[in-house]
Amino acid sequence: MRDIFPPTGPELSAKSWQTEAPLRMLMNNLHPDVAENPHELVVYGGIGRAARTWDDFDVIVESLRDLEADETLVVQSGKPIAIVRTHEDAPRVLIANSNLVPRWATWDHFNALDRKGLMMYGQMTAGSWIYIGTQGIVQGTFETFAEAGRQHYDGDLAGRWILTGGLGGMGGAQPLAAVMAGACCLAVECDETRADFRIRTGYCDEKARTLDDALAMIDRWTGAGEAKSVALIGNAADIFPEILRRMQDGAPLPGGRPDIVTDQTSAHDPVHGYLPQGWSVAEWRSKQETAPKEVEAAAKHSMRVHVAAMVDFWNAGVPTLDYGNNIRQVALDEGLADAFAFPGFVPAYIRPLFCRGIGPFRWVALSGDPEDIYKTDAAMKRLFPENAHLHRWLDMARARIAFQGLPARICWIGLGDRHRAGLMFNEMVASGELKAPVVIGRDHLDSGSVASPNRETEAMKDGSDAVSDWPLLNALVNTASGATWVSLHHGGGVGMGYSQHAGVVICADGTPEAARRLERVLWNDPASGVWRHADAGYESARECARAHGLRLPRILG
Amino acid sequence: MRDIFPPTGPELSAKSWQTEAPLRMLMNNLHPDVAENPHELVVYGGIGRAARTWDDFDVIVESLRDLEADETLVVQSGKPIAIVRTHEDAPRVLIANSNLVPRWATWDHFNALDRKGLMMYGQMTAGSWIYIGTQGIVQGTFETFAEAGRQHYDGDLAGRWILTGGLGGMGGAQPLAAVMAGACCLAVECDETRADFRIRTGYCDEKARTLDDALAMIDRWTGAGEAKSVALIGNAADIFPEILRRMQDGAPLPGGRPDIVTDQTSAHDPVHGYLPQGWSVAEWRSKQETAPKEVEAAAKHSMRVHVAAMVDFWNAGVPTLDYGNNIRQVALDEGLADAFAFPGFVPAYIRPLFCRGIGPFRWVALSGDPEDIYKTDAAMKRLFPENAHLHRWLDMARARIAFQGLPARICWIGLGDRHRAGLMFNEMVASGELKAPVVIGRDHLDSGSVASPNRETEAMKDGSDAVSDWPLLNALVNTASGATWVSLHHGGGVGMGYSQHAGVVICADGTPEAARRLERVLWNDPASGVWRHADAGYESARECARAHGLRLPRILG
Ligand SMILES: NC(=O)c1ccc[n+]([C@@H]2O[C@H](COP(=O)([O-])OP(=O)(O)OC[C@H]3O[C@@H](n4cnc5c(N)ncnc54)[C@H](O)[C@@H]3O)[C@@H](O)[C@H]2O)c1
Ligand SMILES: NC(=O)c1ccc[n+]([C@@H]2O[C@H](COP(=O)([O-])OP(=O)(O)OC[C@H]3O[C@@H](n4cnc5c(N)ncnc54)[C@H](O)[C@@H]3O)[C@@H](O)[C@H]2O)c1
Repeated sequence: MRDIFPPTGPELSAKSWQTEAPLRMLMNNLHPDVAENPHELVVYGGIGRAARTWDDFDVIVESLRDLEADETLVVQSGKPIAIVRTHEDAPRVLIANSNLVPRWATWDHFNALDRKGLMMYGQMTAGSWIYIGTQGIVQGTFETFAEAGRQHYDGDLAGRWILTGGLGGMGGAQPLAAVMAGACCLAVECDETRADFRIRTGYCDEKARTLDDALAMIDRWTGAGEAKSVALIGNAADIFPEILRRMQDGAPLPGGRPDIVTDQTSAHDPVHGYLPQGWSVAEWRSKQETAPKEVEAAAKHSMRVHVAAMVDFWNAGVPTLDYGNNIRQVALDEGLADAFAFPGFVPAYIRPLFCRGIGPFRWVALSGDPEDIYKTDAAMKRLFPENAHLHRWLDMARARIAFQGLPARICWIGLGDRHRAGLMFNEMVASGELKAPVVIGRDHLDSGSVASPNRETEAMKDGSDAVSDWPLLNALVNTASGATWVSLHHGGGVGMGYSQHAGVVICADGTPEAARRLERVLWNDPASGVWRHADAGYESARECARAHGLRLPRILG
Repeated sequence: MRDIFPPTGPELSAKSWQTEAPLRMLMNNLHPDVAENPHELVVYGGIGRAARTWDDFDVIVESLRDLEADETLVVQSGKPIAIVRTHEDAPRVLIANSNLVPRWATWDHFNALDRKGLMMYGQMTAGSWIYIGTQGIVQGTFETFAEAGRQHYDGDLAGRWILTGGLGGMGGAQPLAAVMAGACCLAVECDETRADFRIRTGYCDEKARTLDDALAMIDRWTGAGEAKSVALIGNAADIFPEILRRMQDGAPLPGGRPDIVTDQTSAHDPVHGYLPQGWSVAEWRSKQETAPKEVEAAAKHSMRVHVAAMVDFWNAGVPTLDYGNNIRQVALDEGLADAFAFPGFVPAYIRPLFCRGIGPFRWVALSGDPEDIYKTDAAMKRLFPENAHLHRWLDMARARIAFQGLPARICWIGLGDRHRAGLMFNEMVASGELKAPVVIGRDHLDSGSVASPNRETEAMKDGSDAVSDWPLLNALVNTASGATWVSLHHGGGVGMGYSQHAGVVICADGTPEAARRLERVLWNDPASGVWRHADAGYESARECARAHGLRLPRILG
């Protein structure tokens, strides 16, 4: 049982910051405060790992410590394969995780390879070494809930409540994001240890063991106009229909009917991610090993029940959204014909941002010193003085979000702003204002980096949802632009067969060479999202491309 | 109706040879002597295109003419999307063709997108601009037939004959390769214009309209010990079973039973690639537009008949091989349970070469002058004085293979040899011995560049046939190493859902910068095949890795 802590401070343990950065970030992904199950190398999202085995981890670390400025480490599904000679403007690490030829891109085939030790599930930022704990998802969830509030409740969520499921690595952000957006939240979670973890880290306020208790709290808080959250220990496939039944009974429901319904159980992984109805958590975990087929069948059956209830909420007029866990697809495959009645969160709330290259921009202080992040917070406010929304977010994040592992910050900014922020951080490193370099990265859930027809690219205007040329080009362009590490993944949050996506991280080490790379990478990366949406026919993307002088001869003429 | 001819000679039409090279090679792919159907932008392999539309072609050409030394053109399924700023050691063109998220990676979905103008089928070297006409395939086919001869007939194919189908872009190489390997060949081709084209270009000797006539020729040639070839106009799904019937009748078959059986119809594309039994070619072509579903069903049914005959040949003791067109999979899906009774050509004959990074190495004289190729032929013989097999091939190729479009040469060499050849060519350009720069590339069918479980990665030792991390890493590494253009494709010769693969081309323009890139790219590219096979447990790959000092810490220890 090893506990991993990244080195901190200004001393190098590798030969340069360009290799120290991936080394610290790999270790940070496995930090006990960051990873969901670090001893199994699991970072988040069910089985999303940072390395295939501990032996692989050790050799990656050794290789990075040894890597020269013109060498590149090649990693295949969490296993270090080769050290090759490239050049100083090339990435120091190139990663491909969980990719399968389409006809074989199923959980069955993946699990068989995984059992043989030939594969690893990389999720998005787990296998690409830029997970920053639950904070990463808070911002996205906050933006989504806030946008839903704007669209359905005149921008005011006071006295309203959100029903959801799942308090895992991602889902754990929901109660806090809801509260930040001004709403109450009832989150159904079957694993009490997960609920306790969220309460301990300040992401959730209370715990309840019965629906009655939970609804009583919701009733009290909404009545008082207080934004608070409760974790209800239970199975979402039981609780969602039960709330619906009470709603439809006509008897007044304490707290009133939910105002927004969503879910973040790990439905994308039917063997490891979703507790079947009527099972204990212990039974579920042991059968994942001994009877995976049985778990899968039972979980899928329960998901159908769960989604049927969500469809009924939707039909009853409650804004309901799929939060990107592929649960509608499972239900459809199980025979629920109208599983896709309610929308995914991207077309409903996020795509307009993607059209302008706006998405999750995150950075991490390799020094390990929270002061470095507070300094960048302040610098961001100075750099974008008129962005009131950004200022509010940065203030709330500082007040409410505890750092996990290396101090990090996230905000959503787009093309034209990202490279300015990156260059500013680089100068702050150069001047000594920050104690050590900073890495800048993003989730794979971004505007140009993913093809995922049930999530990020659901219902594209031109029908190009499934075209995965785009994330592949994103990875090639980031490699050609000089990112510090680049990754290509399959599966991610929606599971085997359903998505392909690319990750990028770049290290601002304060050198002029890094500045040139930052300028290219942090321009081209969001730009790739703008082209992708401009090509699909979104007028706002075309406007954004024109405004920023992108050269798209066939699209803009 | 436009005819495209690449510029030739030492004058630039673009701003540098690094951009002139992709420009000439794109045009060369559409040269009337190179492309199978240039007016439709189809290069080879059914519908493998060089650009999505003529407008796209024009903008690609314009963009390349204009491109600066630190800019990169991004091409998505044959459409030029963006011109981005990178740096001088980055590729000048990055391409992704025909990639679809696995769950949607079907012909149905692809064809729907293609009809909407959102996609293009890139095949392998069609959409990545390094097709060199039928010559490209002659070497591979020759090596395969020669190896089959070594394994089954003591290396002597005199008096023996090969039965096959299809004389298209690739399949057209079969009669010549057979003859070069010392055997006769009977190739069944339904489209007379294709047969005539092969006869006109010297790849096939005779034409027959009936099986009796064709067998009489085979009888005469094999009897006389002459290696000659005949194209029989007919449907392979009729002719293969008919020969089998005659063989099984017991009556002596003129020419005797076939000694090797294979097939190169475009079975990978059931709508455009395979004529159903009982249909005329004209009816087939028109229904491809008006009733694609009907064509597909009928073609698949005929393929089952065709493969059933191949299985019977195999069971009768005739060496039978799948030549990578996925026809066994179609027959299996159609219910032929033992469709995979006979092997693919890769595990049977090619994998031992792949383990040493040996695969198709090709180069093209951008001058357009055949003398430049003859000079490189001679230089290759000097560089590899003890490689008698290579010398024989180069001599035969010069004697028997007519150039198509820009003069080109191909041979199979591996890790440790490719970069030496590349550096030598670069010096020959620098010294003025060659009249203009040379491009060096390869097919995607190479040791580290493809995952294709029914073809290149069939029956891998560790069961990792479907793991496509490898070709993605190959493309990322080639991009990071400074290739001139890099591509990532899906589908290729085996069709939608069945493969992912990467292409690479690099221009030797005689500069020291190009020399540095050549050394990296032509080392790392074949090395990626050696790691891939070393990781899969092939001892010869591990030996090769050790002998060449590859740094594979987890594999070699
Ligand atoms: N951006 C997005 O699209 C996005 C964002 C966040 C999460 N997601 C998706 O949401 C899902 C959750 O992500 P995660 O990282 O939190 O996963 P996780 O595996 O860490 O957490 C899932 C949680 O759900 C709980 N759970 C499982 N079955 C349950 C049931 N029947 N009832 C109640 N609780 C149950 C588990 O105990 C666990 O705590 C994933 O599928 C992820 O891909 C998508
Ligand atoms: N390296 C490899 O694995 C490899 C090499 C060469 C070819 N291939 C595969 O072989 C196939 C052929 O390639 P190509 O480029 O020559 O394709 P192509 O489409 O240019 O040619 C196919 C030919 O087959 C003919 N044909 C179709 N149906 C027929 C039938 N029923 N009977 C007789 N002839 C018929 C067509 O008229 C055409 O001339 C492809 O599937 C390709 O991927 C694979």
